[in-house]
Amino acid sequence: MREKIINTSIALFGAHGFRETSIEDITKELGVTKGTFYYYFTNKEDVLMHIHLRFIEGLLEQQKAILDNQSKTNQEKLHDNVQMVIRNIRNGVQSAKVFFREMKHLNEHHTSKVLPKRHEFQRNIQGIIQRGIDEGEFRRDLRADMLSFAVLGVANWSYFWFEPDGEVSEDQLTDIYMRMIIEGIQTKGGEIDE
Amino acid sequence: MREKIINTSIALFGAHGFRETSIEDITKELGVTKGTFYYYFTNKEDVLMHIHLRFIEGLLEQQKAILDNQSKTNQEKLHDNVQMVIRNIRNGVQSAKVFFREMKHLNEHHTSKVLPKRHEFQRNIQGIIQRGIDEGEFRRDLRADMLSFAVLGVANWSYFWFEPDGEVSEDQLTDIYMRMIIEGIQTKGGEIDE
Repeated sequence: MREKIINTSIALFGAHGFRETSIEDITKELGVTKGTFYYYFTNKEDVLMHIHLRFIEGLLEQQKAILDNQSKTNQEKLHDNVQMVIRNIRNGVQSAKVFFREMKHLNEHHTSKVLPKRHEFQRNIQGIIQRGIDEGEFRRDLRADMLSFAVLGVANWSYFWFEPDGEVSEDQLTDIYMRMIIEGIQTKGGEIDE
Repeated sequence: MREKIINTSIALFGAHGFRETSIEDITKELGVTKGTFYYYFTNKEDVLMHIHLRFIEGLLEQQKAILDNQSKTNQEKLHDNVQMVIRNIRNGVQSAKVFFREMKHLNEHHTSKVLPKRHEFQRNIQGIIQRGIDEGEFRRDLRADMLSFAVLGVANWSYFWFEPDGEVSEDQLTDIYMRMIIEGIQTKGGEIDE
């Protein structure tokens, strides 16, 4: 039931917004009493926090598997990270909506549980870039911190426009994006004038 | 007064959210009657649409100046676009918040006025990349449509984390990002295995 409440809340918060959805909307949709809701959750904000936690913890777990893979280069790990984010947004578009849009409705206590995990996810990407620099895969003049946000921006922005049923698959999109991130878009031999 | 109502609404919607702000909050903040509000706007959604329109029309106007500059390469135009987006987000962080978060509160009629302009902005970036490909500045195997979203993602994502008073300025950030977009992050001579 706990999972059912979370999943129904994701669908309703995603479709109508957090503020626009009442606990009654959730229990009605499930055909249960409010008592059932309050058996599992303190209030609506409590459900919201668990949606946020589940989304970011899912990302962190998948990211850990990528980081732990000793056989891959940093470039490959970056690729797998971008692919994983795009796939998670595609497969959980309502969760992603709640995750990106409804952060402001978390109270201070809830935010203090979610935010460190969001930061951990970003810092892990920064870590991949930094190791790539240290090990000579990536250029020495890079700012790993700033670039981790750029990589996240490229991947996360797909949430605003990517159509899973469109002509480009998530794997093709990952390749297009990674090629830009790794090689850049200029013709071979070009240099930025400085 | 019209401008004052819009500016106060931007501040309040940005700080507290669109749903959480009432017309009374806006008129109280301004020290005017509700009648004054209704003289200029039909309802709260009407103000929201004008905030959206003003933000995107401002971006389009600045973009036009960039596009019309015949003396610049496509790479430079892309640079100027990224810089301009970052600067607008920095200088109008409350407007950007409303723009990125509160789109869902526009009704169908209002959306039909705002969305084509958002698309126009994206297609203009796509146009710069396409001309760069056609004129040999950028690689021939690029997908200008997908990459326009990647460039927008990099620039727009700065909204979620960029601290104007931080150690990196908006111009430095633009340079870091453009270098990734143009040259990629790999060490010279590297190639993606395919």
